Amino acid sequence: MSDIDSLSVNTIRTLAADVVRQANSGHPGAPMGCAPMAHVLFKNFMIATGNDSHFPNRDRFVLSNGHACALQYILLHLMGYKLTMDDLKHFRQVGSLTPGHPETKHTDGIEVTTGPLGQGISSAVGLAIAQKHMGATFNKPGFDLFTNHTYVILGDGCLQEGVQAEACSLAGHLQLGNLIALYDDNHITIDGDTEVSFTEDVLKRFEAYGWHTLVVSDGDHDLKSIQQAIEQARQVTDKPSLIKIRTTIGFGSLNQGQEKVHGSPLTDDDIVQVKQKFGFDPSQKFVVPQQVYDEYHAITARGDKAKQAWMALLEQYCAKYPDLGAEVKRRIQGKLPTGWHAALPRYTPNDKADATRKLSEATINKLAEVIPELIGGSADLTGSNNTRWKTAVDFQPPSTGLGDWSGRYMRYGVREHGMSAIMNGLAAYQGVIPFGGTFLNFLTYAWGAARLSALSKLRVIYVMTHDSIGLGEDGPTHQPIEILALTRATPNMLTLRPADGNETSGAYFVALERDDRPAVLALTRQNLPQLDGSSIEGVCKGGYVLEPMSDPQPQVTLVGTGSEVSIAVEAAAQLRAKGIKVRLVSMPCTELFDEQSHSYRQSVFLPGVPVVSVEALSTFGWQKYSHAQVGMTTFGASGPYKDVYAYFKITPEHTAEVARGLIEYFKQIGHVPDLSSQFTLV
Amino acid sequence: MSDIDSLSVNTIRTLAADVVRQANSGHPGAPMGCAPMAHVLFKNFMIATGNDSHFPNRDRFVLSNGHACALQYILLHLMGYKLTMDDLKHFRQVGSLTPGHPETKHTDGIEVTTGPLGQGISSAVGLAIAQKHMGATFNKPGFDLFTNHTYVILGDGCLQEGVQAEACSLAGHLQLGNLIALYDDNHITIDGDTEVSFTEDVLKRFEAYGWHTLVVSDGDHDLKSIQQAIEQARQVTDKPSLIKIRTTIGFGSLNQGQEKVHGSPLTDDDIVQVKQKFGFDPSQKFVVPQQVYDEYHAITARGDKAKQAWMALLEQYCAKYPDLGAEVKRRIQGKLPTGWHAALPRYTPNDKADATRKLSEATINKLAEVIPELIGGSADLTGSNNTRWKTAVDFQPPSTGLGDWSGRYMRYGVREHGMSAIMNGLAAYQGVIPFGGTFLNFLTYAWGAARLSALSKLRVIYVMTHDSIGLGEDGPTHQPIEILALTRATPNMLTLRPADGNETSGAYFVALERDDRPAVLALTRQNLPQLDGSSIEGVCKGGYVLEPMSDPQPQVTLVGTGSEVSIAVEAAAQLRAKGIKVRLVSMPCTELFDEQSHSYRQSVFLPGVPVVSVEALSTFGWQKYSHAQVGMTTFGASGPYKDVYAYFKITPEHTAEVARGLIEYFKQIGHVPDLSSQFTLV
Repeated sequence: MSDIDSLSVNTIRTLAADVVRQANSGHPGAPMGCAPMAHVLFKNFMIATGNDSHFPNRDRFVLSNGHACALQYILLHLMGYKLTMDDLKHFRQVGSLTPGHPETKHTDGIEVTTGPLGQGISSAVGLAIAQKHMGATFNKPGFDLFTNHTYVILGDGCLQEGVQAEACSLAGHLQLGNLIALYDDNHITIDGDTEVSFTEDVLKRFEAYGWHTLVVSDGDHDLKSIQQAIEQARQVTDKPSLIKIRTTIGFGSLNQGQEKVHGSPLTDDDIVQVKQKFGFDPSQKFVVPQQVYDEYHAITARGDKAKQAWMALLEQYCAKYPDLGAEVKRRIQGKLPTGWHAALPRYTPNDKADATRKLSEATINKLAEVIPELIGGSADLTGSNNTRWKTAVDFQPPSTGLGDWSGRYMRYGVREHGMSAIMNGLAAYQGVIPFGGTFLNFLTYAWGAARLSALSKLRVIYVMTHDSIGLGEDGPTHQPIEILALTRATPNMLTLRPADGNETSGAYFVALERDDRPAVLALTRQNLPQLDGSSIEGVCKGGYVLEPMSDPQPQVTLVGTGSEVSIAVEAAAQLRAKGIKVRLVSMPCTELFDEQSHSYRQSVFLPGVPVVSVEALSTFGWQKYSHAQVGMTTFGASGPYKDVYAYFKITPEHTAEVARGLIEYFKQIGHVPDLSSQFTLV
Repeated sequence: MSDIDSLSVNTIRTLAADVVRQANSGHPGAPMGCAPMAHVLFKNFMIATGNDSHFPNRDRFVLSNGHACALQYILLHLMGYKLTMDDLKHFRQVGSLTPGHPETKHTDGIEVTTGPLGQGISSAVGLAIAQKHMGATFNKPGFDLFTNHTYVILGDGCLQEGVQAEACSLAGHLQLGNLIALYDDNHITIDGDTEVSFTEDVLKRFEAYGWHTLVVSDGDHDLKSIQQAIEQARQVTDKPSLIKIRTTIGFGSLNQGQEKVHGSPLTDDDIVQVKQKFGFDPSQKFVVPQQVYDEYHAITARGDKAKQAWMALLEQYCAKYPDLGAEVKRRIQGKLPTGWHAALPRYTPNDKADATRKLSEATINKLAEVIPELIGGSADLTGSNNTRWKTAVDFQPPSTGLGDWSGRYMRYGVREHGMSAIMNGLAAYQGVIPFGGTFLNFLTYAWGAARLSALSKLRVIYVMTHDSIGLGEDGPTHQPIEILALTRATPNMLTLRPADGNETSGAYFVALERDDRPAVLALTRQNLPQLDGSSIEGVCKGGYVLEPMSDPQPQVTLVGTGSEVSIAVEAAAQLRAKGIKVRLVSMPCTELFDEQSHSYRQSVFLPGVPVVSVEALSTFGWQKYSHAQVGMTTFGASGPYKDVYAYFKITPEHTAEVARGLIEYFKQIGHVPDLSSQFTLV
C-alpha cells in the first residue's frame, strides 16, 4: 500500500470511528472494514464529481449495506459534495444531512436509499438496466453518451435477502456487464459468525445466476489485488461481476473481527489505540490530512473533466442529431413531452363496459407512443396485468434473440420484490419512467421496496390488477383485503382505484404528473360500465360528486371506489325507487381528496347527510369518510366473482339496505354525527 | 410404465382436465404435467392415510405450485380423504372444499396453504425442521416416533421467488435430509418460455446452498427414473434433495408444452382428444376406474397400518417413558401445559422502567421453561429483538458443533420472509409453537407469509421490536409508519402493542391462548414506565380504562397504545393541572376491543366525551375511535428518539393542546359527534 493510499484508508477508518462515536450511535465496523475497497474503487475507477451530483453519465455508487453510511458520507465529504465536516459531526441527528441510513433526494450524491437489506444491490440492477437502455437508445458511433458503470458494496446481510436473490438472478439473465459488486466478506452478522446461519457458497450461487466472480483474499491490506479484480471485472462486459473481498470488520479496533464492532460506537479508549495504530494524533477528532483531501479532490477533478467532455459531446450530438439530442436533454431533465396528456383516452357512458386492467392496457398503448421514456413490465403476469403494448420490444440481451437493449418491455419473471427494487433504480437513474405489474395482493411481496419508492420520492407506477374479491376463482390466497389500508397509510404514496375508463386515464395522468410520488393503480379483472360524470379532472381531486347521477338535497351519500362505484350507482337507483334522494361520490384517491380544501371536502360530503361507503376490500380506515361501511372484514372466497360478491353482501341490495338503516338510525337519534374528515380543528 | 401406473397417471390427467373445465376456471397444465411424479411419490413413498389426516408421523406433502391444486384434490379424493367426487365437481365454487388454491384447515389433508408462489417450499422447510426437532426431542432407541419425510412439488415460479431462496439457503445450512423437493421443470411460465427471464442454473444454485441434486430427463414417461431418484434422495440424510424432473406442461393436450395450457381450461374438443389418446371414453366425465381407486386405497391402507403401528409404539413408549409420553400426547393435541400462565411476570408501578422488548425477553425466559414446545428465533437480530432466553440451545445440525436438533433457538439469518414462511410450517406441524423476531418495519419483508399465518389460522407469534419512530437514530428507513394499519386491517390477525410489563405479559397470554390466530407483538426499543392499573386482564379486552389514573366524569378521554400510553399519562397530568378531568384508556389491541360487547365499548369510550388518540405511527384508522389523532402522517426522521418525538410533536404538551382544542371546538359546535365505533347499527 502506498503512503497516500494508506493515509487515505486510515483517515476514513478513524473518521468513521469519530463520526459514530460523536453520534453515540451507528455502525463503525463496516466502514472500517470496507475503507480499502471503497478507496480503491473511488480513486481508480469512479467517474463522478462532487460539484455536480446529477452529471448524467456519472458512475453510480450504491452502498447496499447502508448501515455503513458513515463511510459513504465521508467519501462524499472528501470529494466535495454538499456535505460538510459539520454535517459529519451531526451524524444521525434530527434535520441533518447525515441520517442513520442513506436517503436519496435528501443527501447530495446518494443515488438510491439503502439500509433495509438487499435493496441497494437490487436497485443497482435497475440503475444498470437504465444505463444499458439509455446507451442503446441514444448512443451513436463516436457518441458514447451513456457508458457509466454501477458499482455496489454489499455485505452478508444483503446476500441473504430474497429481494437480492430475485434481482441478481435477473441481472445474470440480462448479462449486465456494467454492474460490478464488491462483497464485503467479513464473516460477521448481528447474530455472530456467519457460520450460524449462512454457509452457502455465494460465488457458486452467483455463477449459477450467470455472473462473473472473483476473489480477493486480503481486503484489509492488498489494495493492488482489489484494483486488479475491478479491472478484470470491467473487462467482462457480458456478465455482471461479483468480487468477494475478505475483510476484517472494524479493522483496527480492539474488537476487530467480532460482532461487537458492528452496531455500536467504539469506546474512547479503543478509538485512541486505533488512532495510535494508524499514526494519528489520538487527542484530535475529525481529522482529514490535506493530502487526503487533495487525493479525493483529484477524483472530483477527474469527474469534472469527464463531465465537461460529456457536455461538449452532447452539444456535438445535438448538432448532428437534433431530434435525438433534444430528447436526451428533455429526458435527463425529467420533463414529460409537451401535450402528452392529449393521448389519454376519454369515454362516454355509451362506450362498452370493460375491466380497468383492459382500460389500463388501452391507455398504455397510447402513452407508450408519446412517452418513450416509459419502461413497462410485469412479474410474469403480462397477459393478466395487460401491461404490454402492441409495439413493445422486450428489453433483452441481443444475443438471446429475444429483444434488444433498447427494448422497453421488462420480463421480470416471478420476482415482485426484485421488480419493485429494480423500478426504484430505474426511476433514480435519469431518463426513464418505470411501471410494473402484478396482482394487487402481491404488492406486499414487494413492500420492502415499494415503501422505499415512497420514502425516496420516486415516480414508480405500480400497475396492480385483480384488485379485490372480484378476481373470483383464484380465491382468498390471491384476493387482497388489507392492501389498500397499507398503501393509504403510507406517506407520499398515491392509491388510485379508478371506476371506469375516464378514471383510468385520470389515474395515469396523476401518476405521471407527480414526479415525486409513487402511485399504486388498483385495477379490476372484471368488466365495469362507463359512468356518467366520471372524469380525469375528478380523479385529480381524489373524490368528487358524480353530478349527472346525483340528486339535489340528498338524504344519503353513497361513496365508492373502483368496481364498487357501479354497485353504488345501482344501489342509488333502488333507493330512488323508494323515494330516497341520493348523492353519488366516486373516490378514486383518498390521499388526493384529503389534500383538497376543507370547503371542497364539505361540498362533496355535505354536513348533515349520512354517508355509506362501499369498497370490496377491508373497511379499515373508511370510518373517516363514512358512517357505515359495506366491505370486507374477513378473507375472501373462491368462486365466480358475482357469487363471491353476493356471498359477502357487497351488492346494490345490501348497500341500499344499509343506507336505509342509517337514515332511520340517525332519524331516531335526532342528528347526523360529523365525520372526522369534516373537522376543521388542529 | 406398467398398465396400472399408466392408467393411474392418465386418470389423474383426464380428471384434472374435467375438473378445471367444469369450473370453467383453473390450471390444467401443471396437474397434467405433474401427474407422473405425483403418482410415483404417492404410490411408492408417501406414508399417509385418508382416514386420518392428523396421524402425527405422516409424511407431509406440499404442493408449492398451488395453482395445480386440481392435482392435489384428486390425490386426496383417490386416497379417501374427506373430499368427494362431488367436491371435485364444485371446484372453485363458493363454499366448496376445493377452492382455487389449497387452504389448510379448510380442506382435509392440506398441510399448508399454498398458491402465493414460493410459500409452499418455504413452509415445507418449517415442516422438516419440526420433524427433526420432534424426533430429537422424543425419539429413543427402539422408539422412532417422529421419522416422517416432507415431500414437495414445486415449479419455476416458486424457484424465482425470494422467499424460496431464503428458506432453501437455510435448509441447506440446516442439512435437512428429511426434505425432498420435486421440481416440475416444464420450461413454461405465464410470460411464456422460461428463457425470457429465468435462465439460471437451478441445480448449481441449490448445490451452492448445500443441497443434494438429481435429474430425471423424461418425467412424462419414465416413472422408474423418478422412483429411483426419490430413493436416492432418501438415502442422503444430511442434505435436502432437489430432483429436477423435465416434464411437458399439459401433457396430452393439443397445446402441450405451451403457456396456453397453464391457466385456462382445455377446450371440449381438446379434452375429447386427450381422453381418446389415453384410452378413455370421451363421452364420459369425471371417470375414475375402480383399479385406480384400489391403487390409491392401498396407499391409505399402508398408511393406516403405519398409523396403527405408530399408536402401538406410542403406548409402549408411554409405558417406558410416562412423562415424555404424556408430553408427546399433550403436544400433538396442541394443549398448553396446565397452569402455564402462572409463569407470566406481573409488575407494579414501583418496578423499574424498561423497554417492552426487554420485558418480552423476561417473559420469554419464564415461558421457555414452562412451555417446551416454544421454538423461538430471530432474523439475525437476536440481540436487538431480545428473543433468546438464557438456557436456549441453538437448533443446528450436531455436526456443526453449534447446537443440536433438539435445540429450540432458530438462527434464521437475515431472512425475514423465509422465517415467517418457516414459522407457518412449524405451526402447521403438530407439537411446536413458533415465535420469531425482527424490527416491526421489516414485518412487511415477510408479509407474503404473514398474511398466510392469518388466512391459515396458525398460531405464529411475531416478536416485532423497534416498533415506531422511538427506535431513533436508525431513521426513516427503519421506522414503521404504515405497518400497524396493515396488521389491523388483516382479518384474523391480532396486533398487540403493550404499554408496560403487565401488558407485555398480557400480549403473550393472548398470543398463546389463541391457537387459531397469529399475533404481532409491537415492542419498543426505548424504556417505558410501569403503569398504575395496567393488567393482563385488560389486554384480553383489547382496550380498557386505566382506572387509578382516570377521573370520574371526564371532559376528555386520551387513548394510547404502547409507548404512547405514558405520553397520554403525562398529558393527562398537564390537563388536570389546568382543571380538566381526564380519562385514560390503554388500547393494546383494537381487534380484541372491537370484539367486545357494545355496552363494554361504550363503558370505555363514554358517549359525549371527546377522544384524542396518540400513537407514534400512522393515524390512519384511528378515526374510528378518536375525534383527533396525535401521530404520524409522514415518514420519520433519524435522531435520538426524544428529539424525534419532539420533532413530530408526539409529546404530552401537544397531546394536551390537541385535547384542549377539541374540547373547545365541540363546545362551539354544541355537541360531541358519536364515533362510528359507538354505532349500533347494521
